[in-house]
Parts: sequence; C-alpha cells; structure tokens
Amino acid sequence: MLKGVYAPVLTPFHADLSPDAARLVAHGRWLLAQGCGLALFGTTSEATSLSVEEREELLDALVDAGLDSAGMMVGTGCCALPDTVRLTAHAVRRGCGGVLMLPPFYYKGVGDDGLFRAFAEVIERVGDSRLRVYLYHFPRMSAVPLSLALVERLVKAYPRTVVGLKDSSGDWANTEALLKALPGFAVFPGSETLLLPAMRAGGAGCISATANVNAAAIRQLYANWQAPEAEAMQERLIATRRAFEGHPMIAALKAALADARDDHAWRTVRPPLTALDAAESAALAADLEAVGFRIPV
Amino acid sequence: MLKGVYAPVLTPFHADLSPDAARLVAHGRWLLAQGCGLALFGTTSEATSLSVEEREELLDALVDAGLDSAGMMVGTGCCALPDTVRLTAHAVRRGCGGVLMLPPFYYKGVGDDGLFRAFAEVIERVGDSRLRVYLYHFPRMSAVPLSLALVERLVKAYPRTVVGLKDSSGDWANTEALLKALPGFAVFPGSETLLLPAMRAGGAGCISATANVNAAAIRQLYANWQAPEAEAMQERLIATRRAFEGHPMIAALKAALADARDDHAWRTVRPPLTALDAAESAALAADLEAVGFRIPV
Repeated sequence: MLKGVYAPVLTPFHADLSPDAARLVAHGRWLLAQGCGLALFGTTSEATSLSVEEREELLDALVDAGLDSAGMMVGTGCCALPDTVRLTAHAVRRGCGGVLMLPPFYYKGVGDDGLFRAFAEVIERVGDSRLRVYLYHFPRMSAVPLSLALVERLVKAYPRTVVGLKDSSGDWANTEALLKALPGFAVFPGSETLLLPAMRAGGAGCISATANVNAAAIRQLYANWQAPEAEAMQERLIATRRAFEGHPMIAALKAALADARDDHAWRTVRPPLTALDAAESAALAADLEAVGFRIPV
Repeated sequence: MLKGVYAPVLTPFHADLSPDAARLVAHGRWLLAQGCGLALFGTTSEATSLSVEEREELLDALVDAGLDSAGMMVGTGCCALPDTVRLTAHAVRRGCGGVLMLPPFYYKGVGDDGLFRAFAEVIERVGDSRLRVYLYHFPRMSAVPLSLALVERLVKAYPRTVVGLKDSSGDWANTEALLKALPGFAVFPGSETLLLPAMRAGGAGCISATANVNAAAIRQLYANWQAPEAEAMQERLIATRRAFEGHPMIAALKAALADARDDHAWRTVRPPLTALDAAESAALAADLEAVGFRIPV
C-alpha cells in the first residue's frame, strides 16, 4: 500500500514541446531526495496533454534510470478504454506500486453503472493480481465526480485491487466521509492544506501539486503530525499553497522551478496551458517572497 | 466547403467492445444513400472512447471501401497535441474534406490565448494547404467553450483553413451571433431542431446525432427550407428529436437502429456509456411510436 507525500510530477518539455526525459529523471531524483513519492502523469503533470506513447516512454526512462518503481503511482486513466488498459498494464509490467485512475472524462452526467463498468473493464482486461488502483476524484477538472456509492461498489467488487483514492475535491466533508466509510482504504487529499486533518482521521498522506516545490516541508508535517508544532507547520504550508493558488498553478510551479534552478526550459507548458509572462512571474515571485518561501536547491 | 446534413456516425462495436468496421461501412453507405454526409468521430460516435489507432483504422476502412472522403468531416480534436496532429494529418492524407476539432477538453477555465495556441499548433504542425478545420463548440460536454472572440481570432489568423464551426450549444443566440459576425463561415447547428432558422440566417446545414436515424427527413427540410411546408417539416423533426431526447441519446439511437434492422449487435456501447435495458428500450419504442417515427430501412 502506498502512503506518504506524493508530487504529481511536473513534466518538462523541450522548446519544440516534446517531453524532456532527462530533466524529468533529474526532477524525480530530487523529489525522492526530499522524501517525496512520485505520482507520475497527474493533472499537474499535464498528463492528458501527452500521447499514450509519450507516457510509456517517460515512465520507461524513469525506471530504466534506476528510480524505484515500487514506490511510484502512475496516472493511467484516459477517455478511451484501450488507452487506459494499455497504460495500466504497462505500469504494472514496470513494477509500479499503484496506478492513479481518472474516470473517462469526456461524457458528462453518465451514471454510476457506466463508471463502474469503465473501471471494472480496465481491471478485468489488465487481469493482473499485482495491480493496485487508486481512484482519482477531481470533479472541478474532470467534471465527472466519483460518488461514495460508486467507490464502495468498486471496493466491494475488487477489494485487493481498488485500494485507495486521491480526493482533489478540496471538500473536507467528502474526504472525511470516505475515511469513515472505508477503514483501511488509502485516502490522499489532493492538497497539503488538508494534510493534518487527513492524518488525524487516518488518511494515507497527500498528493499535491505544490509538493513539486515544497516537498520537504510537507513531508515534515506528514512525519510529525502528532507533534505539538504540527498546527504551526500546517499553517505555514497553507500560506505557501495560497501564494501559488493566486496564479495558474501548473505554469506557476514551472516558473518557480525555472527561477530556483536558473533553468528557463522549465517554463514550457503544452497548450492549452500558457506559460507565465514576465509580469506574472514577477507577481508570483513577490507573493512567494511575502510568505518567505524559497525552493530548496 | 462542406455543407448539408451530416450525421456524427454511430460507431458499432463487437461484443468484446472492439470496433466493428464492417457494420460501420454499411451504416456509412446507408447514410450516404439517405443524402446524409458523414461526420465521423463526433460525440455521438463515441470518438473519445476510441484510441488514436482505432480511429485511423476505421477511417481507413471507410475510405478503402470506396466511400467518398472528400465529403467527410472527421473528428480529430483530442486532449493531447500529438494525437490531434496525428489524426488531423491522417484525415488530410486520406483526402477528407474537413476535420471537426474539439479543443483539448481536460483543463477547464483555460483562457483564449491557450485555446488559440492549441488550435494554431495543430494547424502549423499539420502544415498542409488542403486542411479545412471546422471548430467544435459543445460546452455542455467538453466544458471548454469556444468564445466568439476566439473563433474570430482563429479565422483571422487562418482564413483559408478555419472555415466553419459546429455549434452544439443549443443556444440560438450564439449560432446567430456567429453567422452575423462571420459571413461565409460555415456554421452548422448541432441539432436539426435549429435547421430552419439556421438556413434562413445563412447557415451551412446541420450536424445532428439523430441524422443517424432520420437523415432523409432532415435532408428534405435542408433542400426545401424556402418552401411553404418548411415550418411543418421543422415541427415534425423537432417532435422526433424530442422523443429521442427523453432517453440517453447515443444508446437510444443504437437501440433504435438495432430494432429497425433486427440486429442486436448495434446496441453495444463502450463504457462509460451503458446500453438501454429492456424497459428503457420499450419506453423508447413507445415514445417513437407516439410521434409516428420509423427508421426507413
């Protein structure tokens, strides 16, 4: 079972918008050194902007470079069943500890029966006892929410396979309901702003965009959530997170990394996202300065 | 320039959920015989539920079977830039008259700059003077609307390439605004319920799910929109459309075809959609009976 602090790893691109495997490997190593797990191909990774082949090649590059795949959680949920099956089977084959699975997200308003069938078909077709699925609930972005009833039904049908969920709803009531309804199920809030309440309620950690730049501090709260200074640590994490949330998150994280590493290439995003311009970058830098945040180098 | 009545062609599947090219070719031929153009890989086609390879193979099957590609409009808009480029280049290579392009639809709330860049990168990378792009505006499903300002900007930048739009908003004010702002731009409402007002305002026809079963009647209004009986024809089309709209549209169209052709295989949909069950099928049949609708065989 995966647990801890995970970063949905930012995907670096070359100037021609092709994925930059070398920078990805280096960033992955740095995150691991900060005590941070790798959640590849999440929303922050611009995963849906990558082709199936590009996702396979990047995962291969990381594993072939010697990064421990057992600790990796790999995003594999696509709109098309064969794509999700292919990426999931590949992640299992490469020894990845879990996959993070979005529902098919084009058709809105489909019922729980259809969503159950979508996940069940993937699990049955991959047909591998090593598969561990973490469901990915991000209603604001996918616009296809995963109801508690659906999650319970999947856990009941596949108790050894469907073992956790990333809750990016930002709605603590939902996270809490999942934790209460499913003891032992690994629930990760999608932001470190809910890490302390999640740990107190039996959560598994968190998977958060800002772990790409602030993993060590998030990890510190994760490891010391029962300590007297935990509340203060949580407050500091919230302040840093809010500084980023004032800007387009993915482009802002890349801009902050580019500045910290003096490596302009990190700024590149694929469309439909846009990189921060000079004024936006300056505003971000000022907001980070105001909360006293600096990326450890 | 493409115009007329188009069906976003339903995609038949085998029982194992693999695409059924033979039934697709037969359905395509039947639609053409009804005077209906083929808009492949739209929402009704479950296009986002197909892999890139499946979409290429199905298009190849249709063109190789001798169906006229010059009249085809092919859906190619995916979340990932390389996928959209690949499918668009393939459609151009196969001589298709146009492509119907969704914006990347995972990231919500991206600005017009990012969406402009998404379409522009595809057009530049395909780099073929034969390319004709029809933008696909379907805010209820994609949750990524295309503003009039964005459309105007794309037309201005690529006047010979960005030549039309399918407006599935269902909002006549939006369709009318497009027709007024862009004379000569081929605007297709996404439903035959707006065909008569669209033709009166200079529209190019319509691209409608229900053309899969009712193309001949829709085509009749298209060809006779200035005739005295046009209003009555429009009313009849609306009544039939409403009968389908009381049910999940894609599964209902497939069920209706399965019944009309006595071919159960047509009922199959890919997840996350679900096929109509017996009770739903009976309710649909009753609703179609009530408006006196029968699929011509």
